[in-house]
Order: sequence, then structure tokens, then C-alpha cells
Amino acid sequence: MNRPKFPKETVRRLPLYLRCLNRLLMLGKETLTSKELSEFLGIKPAQIRKDLSYFGDFGTRGVGYDLEELVGEIRGILNLEEEWELAIAGIGNIGDSILDHLEFNQPGFRITAAFDQQPDLVGTKIRGINVHDLEEIESVLSEREVHLALLAVSAIEARKVAKALVDSGIKGIINLAPIFLNLPQDVEVTQMDLSSELGQLVYNLENN
Amino acid sequence: MNRPKFPKETVRRLPLYLRCLNRLLMLGKETLTSKELSEFLGIKPAQIRKDLSYFGDFGTRGVGYDLEELVGEIRGILNLEEEWELAIAGIGNIGDSILDHLEFNQPGFRITAAFDQQPDLVGTKIRGINVHDLEEIESVLSEREVHLALLAVSAIEARKVAKALVDSGIKGIINLAPIFLNLPQDVEVTQMDLSSELGQLVYNLENN
Repeated sequence: MNRPKFPKETVRRLPLYLRCLNRLLMLGKETLTSKELSEFLGIKPAQIRKDLSYFGDFGTRGVGYDLEELVGEIRGILNLEEEWELAIAGIGNIGDSILDHLEFNQPGFRITAAFDQQPDLVGTKIRGINVHDLEEIESVLSEREVHLALLAVSAIEARKVAKALVDSGIKGIINLAPIFLNLPQDVEVTQMDLSSELGQLVYNLENN
Repeated sequence: MNRPKFPKETVRRLPLYLRCLNRLLMLGKETLTSKELSEFLGIKPAQIRKDLSYFGDFGTRGVGYDLEELVGEIRGILNLEEEWELAIAGIGNIGDSILDHLEFNQPGFRITAAFDQQPDLVGTKIRGINVHDLEEIESVLSEREVHLALLAVSAIEARKVAKALVDSGIKGIINLAPIFLNLPQDVEVTQMDLSSELGQLVYNLENN
């Protein structure tokens, strides 16, 4: 696909658009004006029109957006047309709410492998997913088409586990540990820890 | 202070520098070369030198950086010279690991108020902090100098609770709920949910 590059802030908003639109689709809604979209999403209409304008012009004045088409467009932009498999390393460390959130509400992703080091977790199933030992990352993942991982082990273990994930074919990591991972250039890492977010929040607060 | 604006990516890295440097200080380390810094942090020396170059020139060739001075500089840039008080709304929803992380490892922040709606939590103390009902946000916070909050309630409650926080003087929110908050312009919101992060990760993976 020869799409333009989308602004980062738009890309960050699209998954939340998608969540909301998917639910409206399931509720039987077919079209949506940007005013309605604005109310459901809690974003100003001008911002939504601007974000959607990157997609090309497919809203119809007076009728609004075709919901199914809009969902399809956003899935296409986010490369979520097919489901991505997701591995989780450190399942004992992430809160139940995060697991809930991920399993039941996340269009486009499916957890298919879980790893931990706690003996009372290894060998069990959590929400239908077998939990393997962290030592088994390479043997389990090398037989699968899993390219994304959620790294939720402690900062002390994070680098070692990240290396095992990358050696097993993982190309994208969400890093919940408050530590940098020094990985090959072709691996994408998104940092998602409170240190980074709080630091940035306070900086923005004082400098904007 | 008349500091230049720092690039966003540098600002996001600084809190993790700070965590690491604080620990080295506690271990009795006094100076640090950029090579050592690179090894501890897991970031390339060139990147570190570039990030630190925004601070002005205070590293000494051959000796390296004075650790205490460096920590002071970073705290200054991040506005963490004084401790920020932090309120948490939805303490039952965030994993223990996040609480651990926040309480024990987070220089510059201190949780001083917690709110939840679960009857078995309200009225108890969690790690020394009184847990109040969500309905009490305004009465509790209006007497305090708390300007930051972690919003960890469900998406269904998030907007209502965010409004109560802002009405009580909160100026910066880390939003863990996968929903947009439509708040006044002078309130900073940092989105920290898996939908947004996974969406961005996959987009970067396919487009970089």
C-alpha cells in the first residue's frame, strides 16, 4: 500500500477510534455523523474531521460516515486487517485489569503464548493460554508466527528476556519495564512505564 | 528558568536516566563516563552524548560526568526538584506491580491520595495511604496541593471521574483507561493504555 505517513498523534488516536466504532457496529449502528462521533469519542469534531481527512474523502455530507467502511479503513491504516498474535512474558506481573482489557476488548490482537518464571504459574492455563517457563521462550516461539510481545518482567530480567524474544522472531515489543532495551535496529520498542509517562507529563505541564 | 525546549524523545528518556543514576549514586558512585553510562542504561554512547548536550557542557573529558550534578540537572529539566504529590483513582484496577513500581522506585513522586469505589477497599489503608470513595474526590483534594492524578478506573467511569479530578485542582492526568477524556485545554493528559500502544507499535513496524 502506498499510503502517506500519518502524524504520530493521529496514529495514537486511531486505536481508540477503532475500539469505539467496533462497539457501535456491534450495537447495529450503520452511519455516523462527525458530531455523533465526537460525542461518543469525547474529541472535538474539528479534530476528528482532521484525523479522518488523512484517509481521503469518504464521508457523505448530511449522512455522515459509513461505519463499516470507516472501521475497515482504520484497520487498514493500523495494519490490523489480520489478527496479530501476541506473546506475554511476565504474566504474573501484569494486573488482571490489563489482561481483561487485552483479551476482551482488543480488536486485532490475540494472546497466543505466555511465559513466567513463577513455579505456581508455569504449567497452568490463564484464560485458556498455556503458561510456559521463561526459559522456553525460544523453543515455544520458534514454531509459531508470533511477532509481537508484551514485556512485563522486572527491570532486572528485562534485557535478558527481551534478547530471547528477539532471538525467537519477535519484531515489536511493548516494554512495561522501566529500563531501556538495547536491541537490533529492526526491532520496534514502545516504552510503556510510569517513570517515562510521569516525567513527560510534568515536563509538558511546566513547559506548555 | 529559560531553558530550551527539549525534543520529546529526549524528555521520554530522561526519567529512565534519572532512575538509573539515582541508584548509582546510592551505590556510592561519583563520576561516570559516557561509556559507563551507556552500559548501565543500555543506550548507545552517541545517543547519550546527544541527549546530554542539550544540558550544556559539564562533562569533563577523560573524567566523565559528575553524577550528583547530572542527577540535579535532570531533576531540574523534568521539574522534579520538589516532590510532586499524586492521587490515584481506581486503586483496585491497577496491578500490584504498578504500585510497587510507583512507590518504591519513582524519584520525584509521592502518592498521597487514593480513591476507589469497591466497598472492601474504601476506608482501608493500602501501603499507608487512606483509600477514599470516588465520591469524595472533591472534598479530599480541595484541601490538598495535589496536581497530578493516575486515572485507573474503567472506561465507563473514566470521564466522570476525570471531571471530578479536574474540578478539584488536578492539572495533569495519566489516563490508563482506553477512552479519550474531553477536558479543558490547560489540563495535560497522557494516554497510557495498551490499545494505543499496540496500535502505534504495529503501525511503526509496518511503516518504518
